[in-house]
Amino acid sequence: MSHSPGLKLKDLGVLQKTLAPITSADLFKPDDCLCKPKSSIQVNRFLSREARIRAPSSLKASVAALGIDVISFSTGRPSPETYPFEQLDLTFSDPAFLTSSSSRNGDDYPASGPLRSIVYRNDPDSSIDISIALSYGYSLGCEQLLQFLTTHITHVLCPPYSDWEICLTVGNTSALEIALRNFANEGDCMLVEEYSYSGMLEAARALNLNLVPIAMDSDGLCSRDLEAVLSSWESCHPDKPKPRLLYTIPTGHNPTGITQPPGRRREVLAVADKHDLLIIEDDPYYYLHFSQAGTRSAATLLPSYLSLSTAGRVIRLDTTSKILAPGLRLGWLTAPKAVVETFQAAHDLGIVHPSGLSQVVVYKLLSEAWGHDGFVEWLAHLADEYGRKARLMLQAMRQALGHRGLEDICSWKDIEAGMFIWLTIDCSSYPGLDHTVESMAAKASIEEHIYTAALEAGVLCCRGSFFCVPSLSVSAEAPDRGDGDRDGDGAVPLAPSKPIVYLRLTFASVSDTDLVRGIERLATALREVFGLT
Amino acid sequence: MSHSPGLKLKDLGVLQKTLAPITSADLFKPDDCLCKPKSSIQVNRFLSREARIRAPSSLKASVAALGIDVISFSTGRPSPETYPFEQLDLTFSDPAFLTSSSSRNGDDYPASGPLRSIVYRNDPDSSIDISIALSYGYSLGCEQLLQFLTTHITHVLCPPYSDWEICLTVGNTSALEIALRNFANEGDCMLVEEYSYSGMLEAARALNLNLVPIAMDSDGLCSRDLEAVLSSWESCHPDKPKPRLLYTIPTGHNPTGITQPPGRRREVLAVADKHDLLIIEDDPYYYLHFSQAGTRSAATLLPSYLSLSTAGRVIRLDTTSKILAPGLRLGWLTAPKAVVETFQAAHDLGIVHPSGLSQVVVYKLLSEAWGHDGFVEWLAHLADEYGRKARLMLQAMRQALGHRGLEDICSWKDIEAGMFIWLTIDCSSYPGLDHTVESMAAKASIEEHIYTAALEAGVLCCRGSFFCVPSLSVSAEAPDRGDGDRDGDGAVPLAPSKPIVYLRLTFASVSDTDLVRGIERLATALREVFGLT
Repeated sequence: MSHSPGLKLKDLGVLQKTLAPITSADLFKPDDCLCKPKSSIQVNRFLSREARIRAPSSLKASVAALGIDVISFSTGRPSPETYPFEQLDLTFSDPAFLTSSSSRNGDDYPASGPLRSIVYRNDPDSSIDISIALSYGYSLGCEQLLQFLTTHITHVLCPPYSDWEICLTVGNTSALEIALRNFANEGDCMLVEEYSYSGMLEAARALNLNLVPIAMDSDGLCSRDLEAVLSSWESCHPDKPKPRLLYTIPTGHNPTGITQPPGRRREVLAVADKHDLLIIEDDPYYYLHFSQAGTRSAATLLPSYLSLSTAGRVIRLDTTSKILAPGLRLGWLTAPKAVVETFQAAHDLGIVHPSGLSQVVVYKLLSEAWGHDGFVEWLAHLADEYGRKARLMLQAMRQALGHRGLEDICSWKDIEAGMFIWLTIDCSSYPGLDHTVESMAAKASIEEHIYTAALEAGVLCCRGSFFCVPSLSVSAEAPDRGDGDRDGDGAVPLAPSKPIVYLRLTFASVSDTDLVRGIERLATALREVFGLT
Repeated sequence: MSHSPGLKLKDLGVLQKTLAPITSADLFKPDDCLCKPKSSIQVNRFLSREARIRAPSSLKASVAALGIDVISFSTGRPSPETYPFEQLDLTFSDPAFLTSSSSRNGDDYPASGPLRSIVYRNDPDSSIDISIALSYGYSLGCEQLLQFLTTHITHVLCPPYSDWEICLTVGNTSALEIALRNFANEGDCMLVEEYSYSGMLEAARALNLNLVPIAMDSDGLCSRDLEAVLSSWESCHPDKPKPRLLYTIPTGHNPTGITQPPGRRREVLAVADKHDLLIIEDDPYYYLHFSQAGTRSAATLLPSYLSLSTAGRVIRLDTTSKILAPGLRLGWLTAPKAVVETFQAAHDLGIVHPSGLSQVVVYKLLSEAWGHDGFVEWLAHLADEYGRKARLMLQAMRQALGHRGLEDICSWKDIEAGMFIWLTIDCSSYPGLDHTVESMAAKASIEEHIYTAALEAGVLCCRGSFFCVPSLSVSAEAPDRGDGDRDGDGAVPLAPSKPIVYLRLTFASVSDTDLVRGIERLATALREVFGLT
């Protein structure tokens, strides 16, 4: 957050030209960063049995013994001379690419012109070439990209402790799954927003974890409910271990689109500090915060949980999927070194490391073609473009869903980040609504009706039920949690006043014309479903 | 195995130009392949609890509903117009690259000249371009590469049943770990060679599996011992579930270098059929079989377990790591469709799919630049080069380790595939050998001495103990397994006649000069350790 517009960021530290150099963000941190106190959480307390058993790779450890003039008969690494790749000649877009109107019409080149970067088979002038990028790499990631990210994180996120480390990942889905395996045992309970990313729900279910939904309000994850759940845990759930993990999507939340304001983040963190939680901050939409649009700097970004927790109780997950391209399968996580080491050990036995092609291409793009200021400029343009699309979508919704009877049925909140709008559909007036039917079944049936009608009208929406976290059953003697304002999923009978169905609407990959047309089709479908002809 | 030299392989089926098309190898199989009977194994019998719980991704399933003229507000996929990549201009080596002597000296270009292929942002003339390759892809892999691999597998491996499917992976390490999670529960027993890949040992340990070592002889995995272990299971291990999984590295075995001959493979498969095992065939060195050198065809390759099992009890793991470049993090697995679906479901919650960059680059290389015959030619050249290096190494070993007293200490077997030589060091004459010390401790101490002396002499070797699978404890009433010829690891006291230490030696990435020099250094170290001055 300390990055001011116009300040030129410089990378520190010298890069090695060697295969898979053992490296660390520490090599590239400025002195004032290294002088901060260390993180204080006791990582050992959070480790799953799997993470405890998992030993560092014996082969990897043995390579560390390799010195100068030592001939290695050790690892089964092919010779780079046998790679059939001679040259990669890369052409990137200029950071201002998205501001040129031509790009929105699908033309190939913006006015400002593309940037070129070449990766040679053997390049004495570069610390990375094909022979290095396409070999087995170091399991935290290639040093060149780690250097760039260290500088970026130092200036944009400014973690308040010294011993943070970065590990490249193959994206947040994978990083999240490894986090669950590293920090939860079968049967453990994890705190999550009451609506959350369906991939997380499915990953947690496959690992047999119990999800504990925390209420959300217009500021997102409700810190008061979090505190209520935790402080009443023993009486409500005497048979279950108290949760140690909190998973949250703080910016442009999936599916509700809500962005937690700074004050809410601090409140949530205070509860986490009190109850000694480890927070998984899944933040793929962080840089798609519309307020930064046009500022050409990261100065207006919200404080990440990583930036707020001096104890270091945050595993921050970042990805290139929404800011560069999802097919890169490249992301990174930032956390205290002892936490990152558990991911490194898991990677050694699984993904090994992200694609060397993705690593070298992203390095060439970010570090060589764009530089730090170019990257920040790109992110600002991207946020601008998402903000423009969001406004267009919200305007179309006001026009098509805001009158002729739909105004009593449809409601939604404006969003300030990300790509999701959460459409709330009040089904009180649903024709033939059967109040005797149990809540879940009634809602599922209405949701199916709306979803199918929309699809028949030519618009594919995402069912809200995909994202719903069912309540844990509560002990009969439990005190009231004060969640009467919650949506009542689970075994609670349908309250006639609140038969709500949700749709998640994404505008990210829809053309301007189709945005408006799609919302009109949805309006048609809803009018048909609710008999508003 | 049906591919004859000179036969031109042709890809079947029409490719779709669309984002993440749902696809299958079935679309690209020839009729005579589809006419074969289906696999007969009951996949359900093998599923772990995790694989049973894991549901297909709800979001992925919902996208399948997308038809023509449907506007999608459904998935959080960015618009390809926002990817900052304009063009990838790729230069590949000619398949004959490795035969030019210049390449061995590290020069950039072989005489035959490089091949060029360009990936454009939007390419109406190609079924794949940047907008498709860098989006979220289909979870089995990109259709273009699946088509190429279907043709390749049909002709080279010729699976004897019809319903095989391919899934791209991020390499065999990841595929193996997912296989363990899909097909074994905590505490389950898995059959493995008595020496095996250390990464497998570590992955199995982290998942709390019990490994059951099966004896090896000069033909590798011993089918007789496999049968003995399985038929006496209930009496030897009344407290443990009978193993259902067999993990094997049949070609150029890691660490011993042994290649199982066709007859042995058939014997092992017969035992697997009898006891209804699922076989994980980890075969990264399959194409590095020296006998195919110079033949310019795959006709001399050994029969894969995949090619032999009509029941379909084989999960075959292939990787580009040893035949193209490890940094691609790209492999594929072949198995019955019902088996592959369990990997697909695991990928949806983890890696999602391999890097789209790696996929498009490998597709452009294999399909556009080389073609099927070019790929087979490349593999033959590569096997030739590995064979040449192996012969050089073995010759150096005969010269340096075969006389002056070392001939009584060192022994090894010639290899016919892969990159590993397994050096057996008989320590009977180790100075001050203490026969009263327990086997493991004595061997560990001598191994440490040899390893350190070698490193001090300037050569890094890989400790054999990394690969050793300790024996399971056996019930006291168990019948004799007839493994008196085994090495006696575990709690058996050191037999004075057999104090053996192993080193794994890899020649893959060592220059010709260093191969000879490294072996000389090892000889010096061994002479010092054994007091042979």
